[in-house]
Amino acid sequence: MAWRYDAPLREMRFVIERVLDAPASWARCAAFADLDLATAGAVLEEGARFASGVLLPLNASGDREGCTLRDGDVTMPAGFRDAYRALVDGGWPALACSAEWGGQGLPLLLDAALREMMAACNHGFMMAADVLHGAYETIKAHGSTELKSRYLAKVASGEWPAAMALTEPQAGSDLGALRTRALLQPDGSLRITGSKIFISGADHDLADNIVHLVLCRLQDASGSAPAGSKGLSLALVPKILPDGSRNAWVVDSLEHKLGLHASPTCALHYEGATGWLLGEPNRGLAAMFLMMNSARLHVGLQGLGHQEIATQNAVRHAFERVQLKAPIATTPAMRQLLLRLQAQTEGQRVIAYAAALAIDEAAHHEDPARRERQSRRAALLTPIIKALLTQTGFETASAALQVFGGYGYTREFGIEQCLRDVRITMVYEGTNEIQAIDLLQRKVLGDGGLALDELLADLEGEAARAGVLPDGQAFAAALRAQIAEARSTTAAIQAAAANDAEAPLRVADAYLQGLSFLMLTWAWAASARAIIGETDTAFAASKRARVRHGIDWLLPEAAAHWAQARATDTPLAKLDPTH
Amino acid sequence: MAWRYDAPLREMRFVIERVLDAPASWARCAAFADLDLATAGAVLEEGARFASGVLLPLNASGDREGCTLRDGDVTMPAGFRDAYRALVDGGWPALACSAEWGGQGLPLLLDAALREMMAACNHGFMMAADVLHGAYETIKAHGSTELKSRYLAKVASGEWPAAMALTEPQAGSDLGALRTRALLQPDGSLRITGSKIFISGADHDLADNIVHLVLCRLQDASGSAPAGSKGLSLALVPKILPDGSRNAWVVDSLEHKLGLHASPTCALHYEGATGWLLGEPNRGLAAMFLMMNSARLHVGLQGLGHQEIATQNAVRHAFERVQLKAPIATTPAMRQLLLRLQAQTEGQRVIAYAAALAIDEAAHHEDPARRERQSRRAALLTPIIKALLTQTGFETASAALQVFGGYGYTREFGIEQCLRDVRITMVYEGTNEIQAIDLLQRKVLGDGGLALDELLADLEGEAARAGVLPDGQAFAAALRAQIAEARSTTAAIQAAAANDAEAPLRVADAYLQGLSFLMLTWAWAASARAIIGETDTAFAASKRARVRHGIDWLLPEAAAHWAQARATDTPLAKLDPTH
Repeated sequence: MAWRYDAPLREMRFVIERVLDAPASWARCAAFADLDLATAGAVLEEGARFASGVLLPLNASGDREGCTLRDGDVTMPAGFRDAYRALVDGGWPALACSAEWGGQGLPLLLDAALREMMAACNHGFMMAADVLHGAYETIKAHGSTELKSRYLAKVASGEWPAAMALTEPQAGSDLGALRTRALLQPDGSLRITGSKIFISGADHDLADNIVHLVLCRLQDASGSAPAGSKGLSLALVPKILPDGSRNAWVVDSLEHKLGLHASPTCALHYEGATGWLLGEPNRGLAAMFLMMNSARLHVGLQGLGHQEIATQNAVRHAFERVQLKAPIATTPAMRQLLLRLQAQTEGQRVIAYAAALAIDEAAHHEDPARRERQSRRAALLTPIIKALLTQTGFETASAALQVFGGYGYTREFGIEQCLRDVRITMVYEGTNEIQAIDLLQRKVLGDGGLALDELLADLEGEAARAGVLPDGQAFAAALRAQIAEARSTTAAIQAAAANDAEAPLRVADAYLQGLSFLMLTWAWAASARAIIGETDTAFAASKRARVRHGIDWLLPEAAAHWAQARATDTPLAKLDPTH
Repeated sequence: MAWRYDAPLREMRFVIERVLDAPASWARCAAFADLDLATAGAVLEEGARFASGVLLPLNASGDREGCTLRDGDVTMPAGFRDAYRALVDGGWPALACSAEWGGQGLPLLLDAALREMMAACNHGFMMAADVLHGAYETIKAHGSTELKSRYLAKVASGEWPAAMALTEPQAGSDLGALRTRALLQPDGSLRITGSKIFISGADHDLADNIVHLVLCRLQDASGSAPAGSKGLSLALVPKILPDGSRNAWVVDSLEHKLGLHASPTCALHYEGATGWLLGEPNRGLAAMFLMMNSARLHVGLQGLGHQEIATQNAVRHAFERVQLKAPIATTPAMRQLLLRLQAQTEGQRVIAYAAALAIDEAAHHEDPARRERQSRRAALLTPIIKALLTQTGFETASAALQVFGGYGYTREFGIEQCLRDVRITMVYEGTNEIQAIDLLQRKVLGDGGLALDELLADLEGEAARAGVLPDGQAFAAALRAQIAEARSTTAAIQAAAANDAEAPLRVADAYLQGLSFLMLTWAWAASARAIIGETDTAFAASKRARVRHGIDWLLPEAAAHWAQARATDTPLAKLDPTH
């Protein structure tokens, strides 16, 4: 059976039109006032054709061939250069960039759906284009007029893709320990020296230029930068300098990785490379965080893409594979396993797209108060989406492999590559453990619970709307129970944190799992409400069965997470190094 | 940081001596009457030296080099032939085989500990030796005098390793669909014809002969065998025939797999190969099941071995990796993650070793009633061990990878190989979904709950003993609560099954998870009791902290599984093939 991708366009349209009612939002955003569902649908259809027609055929071959480093240059797998040219020519990278810089000015909501499809079809390939939207936002916000005119349109279009150079061998999640130096020159440029690791796409042969965004410590005549993360600056360092010469950096090696073989993960050193400051000196981390929030949503969407392609291939296999004279899809064990995957994938799509719509409104809504509120909402949802969608992405790949049985363990079927590729999403752009701390410490406790209170109020509104359903009480009661858990648990942690600063850190993971179930319950309830009146009765029946499966069979697992999250005074032992 | 293995000999001795009080059991088994703890300890120490000294150094190189098929012959990675020779010369395969056939007659309990260590150090290598104990048991029980005298001692010693040829392309878990034919010859031998897939170690260059056990359909003058699984026979088919000629089979290909690259997974066809019947015609499945039960325990022990090596390397890395000026091992997130892994690994070791001891007593105890009872116990625990230890093995590898961060995703550290290798254990020897059905349908409902009642009575005895602990009430209450859940849930499923034959199948997975938590709670309570009076106070303090962590932080997750297992009247939808 071939690994295949049927883009879930019907599902995507359902979420965009019916669950989120995006057109009502677009009408309040001047930037999207001319957009209608027909145009949006056409964009998604075209994106689906590109993903399954151009990217999917290069997925397995790219994994097997991998990238090679020779004489300092990285060569990508066969077919990748043409596909990248097609990506840029199709205008896909610039979809959500402003028209001023050559973009199409479409909502991030549509960009999210496209990223989901493209990651599903070829996660490795899409790594090359992944950073550029974040780089575009960063250069647009922090670049000088000269830097913008020289780089912004080319980065937006993907003609010059970007790479983020953050990590150094001695500093993983601890950015304060970075050492790469930038010496300010009389002409205002920087000379960058230092070693970086884990840079996706630092070099390749897909494009004529590559733009690095490098975290470094600025040194001028007045002396060194402050120690720690408050002394970090962000520099733009291109592969090819404006005079056509090659910049002074050397790629030392490529990592041999579990997956993503088609994405070169580079270790390199800058040997007095030329760059320019992006934003204020010593404010590099703030500029970087702008990139990281959108990057974290993108990582969540990669997890979602893997969920979708793993689930749909497992379902197809379960209907094709006959044992004891019936397709295994009819057995209760396979129904349990696969309905779980469907309920999770579809629920998490609603959450991710809701966050994308919040980001669109935060930037473009006519009401400033709404912009502020949606900015808080997106910040609150980002760590949940990054952690939940990637963890479920990996679990889904493993569950789907189980459906394939022994065949799933072989390379003949695409699922083992899916399992290997998706695993990195739980690690990069901040490990999921860091997301949990970010959620609880910064996004909930950090603003006194404001963003969470706003969210819970909206979710109560959805619970009230569930009354119109035939089985609405089940959804309303489930959602209200999760809201109550979120409220009481948050209050308990706030109270505990007042006396014990470590308390939130002990329960942060459990708290993220609890809020994830809260959001899933909302997504299932909202989907159940939105399917009312659907004329495609077969689609409606399936949708109802799957969201009901979420409430009936998955939701019981939430209670343990809430209990663990409330256990702020349960001792947590120290580790014994002698084990 | 190097991937390392410190054999958990202190833990193993604690379980064998203190938790299970194995010497008291050996005293009641004539076969082990001469065995003492000093001898047992020496065997384990020697085994640990072999595993970490001989097998571990070949683990990464074996993975990278893999096996090759050329001109019909399989070549193993460099160093494997010498290591296999050392394995056989050391007497390791025959450790638990009877002295009559050249074995050492030691308990399976010690064999279990050795298998755990050897799988941890080199799962791929050990695949070649994995089947032979099951093959030894099968030939001993079902072989003719002639077959035994020709093959048994050589299989027991590992000089001629064995392979199991079950699966065919059209029949995965459905053995009734097998087609390989065996034609009875006038001289009593068989001519075997047919195709088999997924045969681990069907060919290699480790030994001069390889003995296949082949499931096939016997055809004699009276016509064909019955259809389905009742028409299956078991044949012994050696690579080299007694006259020194090569048997008529051809290895067609090796699978390219996610992991276990050092174990050749062969597709082959028998072209009128010569073999001999093992046991009665058409009773092949019964003969096979004898192999499968011990094989399933072994697979669980592979999962346990991966848990141990992943956990201890992650702990070491967490103490070596400094971020924000402290080892990450001191952060609450890492303590949560790693204490969980330690509590699981150590608890599951107790469960697995208890099952091995039950098998020893089932074969050797002086009291026939005890033998019967322990035979039921082993049968009941086998599917739990196979599913729980392998699922946790995979989850542990992934959690440990998370501790290594981006480094864990690269080949430099051993954890990505561990993740790839351990994944197959959830699939082979019966998928974990099949284990869940075996547990509930055959092992619990099938005998009217007898084996489970006996188990629960023993567990109540442990709950009563917990009273002697300082915090004994916590363990006693937790264990009694789990026993009550098991009792009420089993009764509810029994009642539901009377009216709805599909009901147990809908909740079998959740039921296995529930019983897994029951057994873990017992293991933690028994460990807490057994550590009383331990003179190594540092070991005792760490042990107490870890078992307490299990009760406090992991056990809350049990309730959801019990609730799902009791949900026999919650509808489970059909899958929609159109998605």
